[in-house]
Amino acid sequence: MFPTKTILLRILFTFLTYIHGTLCLWPMPSNLNAGSSLLRLSPEFSIVVDVQDAPSDLTQAVQRATTYIQQDKLQRLVVGRGATDAQSIAKAPGLSKLTLSLTGKRPTQSISTEAISLLEDRSESYSLTVPADGSSATLTADSTLGLFRGLTTFGQLWYQYQNTIYAVQTPLTIENDTPAFPYRGFMLDTSRNFFPVSDILRTMDAMSWVKTDTHSWPLFIESHPELSAEGAYTSDSQYSQADIQNITSYAAEEIDTPSHTGSISFSHPELVACSDASPWSTFASEPPAGQLRLASPAGIDLATSIFSSAASIFPSKYISTGGDELNANCYDDDAETQAELKASGQTLEEALDTFVQATQSTLTKVGKIPIISEEMVLDYNLTLSNDTIAIVWISSQDVPSVVQRGFRVILGASDFLFLVLNVGLQDCGGGEWVGDDIANSWCDPFKTWQKIYSFDPFANLTSEQTKLIVGGMTLLWTEQSDPSNLDPIVWPRAAAAAEVFWTGAQLPTGTPLNSSEALPRLHDARYRFVQRGVKAIALQPQWCALRPGACDLNA
Amino acid sequence: MFPTKTILLRILFTFLTYIHGTLCLWPMPSNLNAGSSLLRLSPEFSIVVDVQDAPSDLTQAVQRATTYIQQDKLQRLVVGRGATDAQSIAKAPGLSKLTLSLTGKRPTQSISTEAISLLEDRSESYSLTVPADGSSATLTADSTLGLFRGLTTFGQLWYQYQNTIYAVQTPLTIENDTPAFPYRGFMLDTSRNFFPVSDILRTMDAMSWVKTDTHSWPLFIESHPELSAEGAYTSDSQYSQADIQNITSYAAEEIDTPSHTGSISFSHPELVACSDASPWSTFASEPPAGQLRLASPAGIDLATSIFSSAASIFPSKYISTGGDELNANCYDDDAETQAELKASGQTLEEALDTFVQATQSTLTKVGKIPIISEEMVLDYNLTLSNDTIAIVWISSQDVPSVVQRGFRVILGASDFLFLVLNVGLQDCGGGEWVGDDIANSWCDPFKTWQKIYSFDPFANLTSEQTKLIVGGMTLLWTEQSDPSNLDPIVWPRAAAAAEVFWTGAQLPTGTPLNSSEALPRLHDARYRFVQRGVKAIALQPQWCALRPGACDLNA
Repeated sequence: MFPTKTILLRILFTFLTYIHGTLCLWPMPSNLNAGSSLLRLSPEFSIVVDVQDAPSDLTQAVQRATTYIQQDKLQRLVVGRGATDAQSIAKAPGLSKLTLSLTGKRPTQSISTEAISLLEDRSESYSLTVPADGSSATLTADSTLGLFRGLTTFGQLWYQYQNTIYAVQTPLTIENDTPAFPYRGFMLDTSRNFFPVSDILRTMDAMSWVKTDTHSWPLFIESHPELSAEGAYTSDSQYSQADIQNITSYAAEEIDTPSHTGSISFSHPELVACSDASPWSTFASEPPAGQLRLASPAGIDLATSIFSSAASIFPSKYISTGGDELNANCYDDDAETQAELKASGQTLEEALDTFVQATQSTLTKVGKIPIISEEMVLDYNLTLSNDTIAIVWISSQDVPSVVQRGFRVILGASDFLFLVLNVGLQDCGGGEWVGDDIANSWCDPFKTWQKIYSFDPFANLTSEQTKLIVGGMTLLWTEQSDPSNLDPIVWPRAAAAAEVFWTGAQLPTGTPLNSSEALPRLHDARYRFVQRGVKAIALQPQWCALRPGACDLNA
Repeated sequence: MFPTKTILLRILFTFLTYIHGTLCLWPMPSNLNAGSSLLRLSPEFSIVVDVQDAPSDLTQAVQRATTYIQQDKLQRLVVGRGATDAQSIAKAPGLSKLTLSLTGKRPTQSISTEAISLLEDRSESYSLTVPADGSSATLTADSTLGLFRGLTTFGQLWYQYQNTIYAVQTPLTIENDTPAFPYRGFMLDTSRNFFPVSDILRTMDAMSWVKTDTHSWPLFIESHPELSAEGAYTSDSQYSQADIQNITSYAAEEIDTPSHTGSISFSHPELVACSDASPWSTFASEPPAGQLRLASPAGIDLATSIFSSAASIFPSKYISTGGDELNANCYDDDAETQAELKASGQTLEEALDTFVQATQSTLTKVGKIPIISEEMVLDYNLTLSNDTIAIVWISSQDVPSVVQRGFRVILGASDFLFLVLNVGLQDCGGGEWVGDDIANSWCDPFKTWQKIYSFDPFANLTSEQTKLIVGGMTLLWTEQSDPSNLDPIVWPRAAAAAEVFWTGAQLPTGTPLNSSEALPRLHDARYRFVQRGVKAIALQPQWCALRPGACDLNA
């Protein structure tokens, strides 16, 4: 009995390993046809760009893809780490060329230009063919951004055993792999703790590996250097304009107003209400208290001037003006604001409307589309232009209410997509950061990758309403994060969200996304991240990572 | 009104900053007398070792302390990062010498010899005087280990502003600072995911900065090279004997038996019951299943041979033989074990007693003291020698039952001291690691530094029973940890435990340990760790770290 059972188990195991081998792309393409033949990368392998006047960022992307393929040196996550492939590798055909070409349906533009086009105009789809016989592989797309996405997929095919680089899933055909949502983002809070440019650039690179973009809060605005000169922790802890141009070539940006602006008091104390007021918890959701005097003409002038300057620095069509966590106590107790309101005969809400209209029209006048926080839609009666996009961050339960009002939505809800260890007053599973307190949590527990992966962007929406969902993002607020733990806090959790928003609800097989199927692929993505110098955390003991399914509860 | 209030607040703030400046040592010494004068480190500063035939590890410790003092370059955690000290620094006296000497009460031995002496013989106390006038500082102790602890304290006094290194809390006198508990440890699980030697050595260095030792599970045993040759993930993922000698000069060690020994089946399949049995959850608390055949003479021989070999490799007087999570199903279903039991006429518990007596007598014969898991005391009727030490790891509630039986205890309870993101079947606040499961947690929530810091080693014990508590340790089981997140998972949480076990229940002022008082000091320790290359996480936004108390809930 036993030997037979053992042999059957081995056959099953080999089969599972084979299945495992065919699926290790992240995010999973929307369609896929993969064989099980091995293909070596020829020593003469090169990527040929068959694009007239290829933009320089496409050439750079090709160079980077080549470097990853050559230097990833990822051994397969199977028992023996590829040793069982050795004989097949020796006999496998060699691939010497991948040719990139454009379909000609769109004018040739740089990747960075494509990446900041309007969401509805963005083209990221690509088709990739990798024959099993060693004949040339081809990658075609309508746009350079599509080629960039396809290069990312191609780069995930390769493993190394001893000195040979090889793929295990050829022939491979992917036709018009297209993201489910045009907006797939990550927000890095660079205000609570500082991150050097190198950390931000590494994070942006890593985001591109899972076909996601990044946005963050930068500090230096040329027209108002005093904001960062006075508000930054030290002169080393601010971003220069060159840094920002370096960072923002792909990114959308946010400058939060009128709340969360206490640091403006370092340079413009006369424009900030309840600056550093005590107890801060009465006047703000986090210390230090301080909100821009929204009813003051000078406050409005500063805000519009900042956004006007930001609009010229940030190439993205989208700029977030914030609007979260406005604290009414702050203005109620502020003599200057009350005097301004009395003089103008406005209520606070009316003054907020004036303020928001001023900042938004500053942006729309120069062709930018404002992104705002969900409270601006749900909690106040404001005049907002129809193309405004609302970020739903408090709870995914709020999505239906926002789309009912006709606004497009970016999903960034704290109950699924917050990567923080800590946020606001209480912990998200990582413990309290406010001193002298042991309160419970409003966003407990820790958002695991499985929880993030289970997020349904269309929950509780009619099919008409789903059209208003432009995408989603994970957010890292940095009460307890800084360069020390950036990578392990973000990865691989942000990759789980990346697949939700690229692949959509179903795998190419028609099966709904599920964490059991995903786990081996996410291991693969994670180990590849580590090879590329991004310190993503281990999801399981390595024994489990090498044996797909063996550490499932019912294995 | 307002200006006056502002001035008063500023005065209060200056006062708080001053208080903050006087207290930034971690762990806090058992007694302390500190002034508020600034003292510069003279460019000619040197540490003079006034010890005849100074052991080489003392000389190395002095070199390392000198390097930290010169290279920490930690700016004070105050607004301006020391800019307000500039004038006082210029006028401050310069310190040019710290003299180390021994009292002569003990023979001069190396630090590593002192560190592995019996807990009851260990001497770690030291006295440190740093005058404010620039005259020589002195450090005295009964042992080189005491001098090492004192050097660590001295190294925490120094900040840098521009090119000057200075202390802000002189004159300083510490008299016979002595740890509350002789055993203060950290356990790193190197079996679930692999850690290179460099990670272990960096962690051991960092542990020494908070006056704590380390122990871990190593893999290579010279008498049984097959255990690691076959059981390791790859040939790169095992420790050589040289590595282990490098690592274990200060450390106690554990080899877990008879459970958690599935990896022995790679080299000795005939000695392992329920090897890789399915479903693993019936036979083990974690995959893969597998327990040493404890009733088999060959199984006992292998275990005693391993411990005999380990005893010669590990210099520590203490070796842990494990004994946690024994699974009876595994043996009940094992035909070989059942046959052995039938042949010997023993019950499983009697066979366990025979097994444990064999391994323990192997150790006691060569002068080692066995450490065991609490289940060996509480769940089975075993013959254990009186000097056995039990690790209480399941719950701090189990401590009274263990000490009632007369055994000494090392505290490592999961409800306070587990650093894991995940352990066993369920998460400790970091999410499930077992595939295909969304079970609740047995050790939820995440153990924050505040929770660890609130641990009372003497809870529910009579004063007579407290004498049996030899100390405690934090434990990192590595289901979801590897080199990617080692530092941020461990630090600064392990430092919180280090102070509980060094300083004891009270601060020198008589105030009980409390996290409000501790937070500014722990910030200081954390920023110093980062300067030394250990990626401890931020506890708060930097704005808060520079303003002690300002981010307290009621500030």
